[in-house]
Amino acid sequence: MPRYALLIEYDGRPFAGWQRQADQPSVQQSIEEALGRLEPRAHTIGGAGRTDAGVHARGQVAHCDMVKDWEPFRLSEALNFHLKPAPVAIRACVQVADDWHARFSANERRYLFRLLTRRAPSTLEAGQVWRVNHALDVDAMREGAAHLIGLHDFTTFRSVMCQAKSPVKTLDALDIDVVDGLAGPEVQFRLRARSFLHNQVRSFVGTLERVGAGTWAPDRVRTALEARDRAACGPVCPPDGLYLTGVGYPDDPFPDA
Amino acid sequence: MPRYALLIEYDGRPFAGWQRQADQPSVQQSIEEALGRLEPRAHTIGGAGRTDAGVHARGQVAHCDMVKDWEPFRLSEALNFHLKPAPVAIRACVQVADDWHARFSANERRYLFRLLTRRAPSTLEAGQVWRVNHALDVDAMREGAAHLIGLHDFTTFRSVMCQAKSPVKTLDALDIDVVDGLAGPEVQFRLRARSFLHNQVRSFVGTLERVGAGTWAPDRVRTALEARDRAACGPVCPPDGLYLTGVGYPDDPFPDA
Repeated sequence: MPRYALLIEYDGRPFAGWQRQADQPSVQQSIEEALGRLEPRAHTIGGAGRTDAGVHARGQVAHCDMVKDWEPFRLSEALNFHLKPAPVAIRACVQVADDWHARFSANERRYLFRLLTRRAPSTLEAGQVWRVNHALDVDAMREGAAHLIGLHDFTTFRSVMCQAKSPVKTLDALDIDVVDGLAGPEVQFRLRARSFLHNQVRSFVGTLERVGAGTWAPDRVRTALEARDRAACGPVCPPDGLYLTGVGYPDDPFPDA
Repeated sequence: MPRYALLIEYDGRPFAGWQRQADQPSVQQSIEEALGRLEPRAHTIGGAGRTDAGVHARGQVAHCDMVKDWEPFRLSEALNFHLKPAPVAIRACVQVADDWHARFSANERRYLFRLLTRRAPSTLEAGQVWRVNHALDVDAMREGAAHLIGLHDFTTFRSVMCQAKSPVKTLDALDIDVVDGLAGPEVQFRLRARSFLHNQVRSFVGTLERVGAGTWAPDRVRTALEARDRAACGPVCPPDGLYLTGVGYPDDPFPDA
């Protein structure tokens, strides 16, 4: 059975998350059902990142096994046809080795978080950015973020539901920039790591927002990290502004993504 | 009666356009109804640009007359409260002179058009960008666009429904750039003029897309313009990627917008 890697984009708003659930719509189910229109049987695909309800993706990666030897471009076109009208699109498709695994072969995940600071409700990007009412001190947020870079026990910044074996991870990058977006200037957080814990990005951003607002001194991020205590975390922010932008692999099937 | 200028953002997708209609939802009606919650009576507001169905705005401007002397910030907050859940937001509010008019005092309109070039359907910005399947030659489009700058009879590029007295207008700018958007690189058109004819921007963009695709030589834009004949226009593109980004005034009430 030939195996294919899929590069996937989706709007997370109508979904209960990536992962298939018994009674709620998921991105995984949408794709598995589209595969079932091409080869009628039960399909199970593996995804690189199990994004939560309301979280978006520009560069999710999954793999699927087919019986027929599909030309990869035709497979992506056929899937896009059957995915409509769900807001899920296959951006690219590549045949990979039989033992290649979207989740276990991955050695990097990249996330973007978009934070809009203004009074007016967001209309053009409702559910796609997190809006706060007040100005933020970006330099203070950068100072707070610097404490999180590197190898740490991130117990403070993971959900109590997190199923990862270890809370020790290496955060490779957490860059913060102000970018001119469609609805005005927005604060963009770009994070990069081999893997992330459950709610880690939203725990980081929610905590750093408190730093930007002046409620937390930047050093309190270090204190919170060193506490290794979930109770020391700042508020977890909503999923609205979170995007899985890319997944990295040795011998990357989507080097341009 | 104090008069107020409103800076307005909206997602055009659910609306039949800016202008109030008997039996379809409009942005104007949403705002007039929100005003009616603050001062119960019939309200009629004037808008600077009568955007079509599906066209978005980041910087539409309208004025309203109130009986009560509202503090402008409180008026915008109260309107935003009553506008929910419609995707319409008052970004700013300023008291203006009694004879100030959002439409007739305006001396500039600015539009943005976003064109995404890729095979995969757009999910994160469905209805907010125009997607085409093929690559575009941006230099050729710029060469075609150069013919449109300046004072011309734009009969070729206006809808037969256009109610403007004269087809002669001055186009001050039509800049074309490739920008890294949420869904990948997109071609952005930025246009500026004292005023625009009905469907003028969509006629320009639809025609220039034909130039970018190689179907039209850039010079054919000049020939089409000089024909002063609606039949010489390229295809009118969909409204999805069109945004009214700003309106200019002498002594601008929103100089930072």
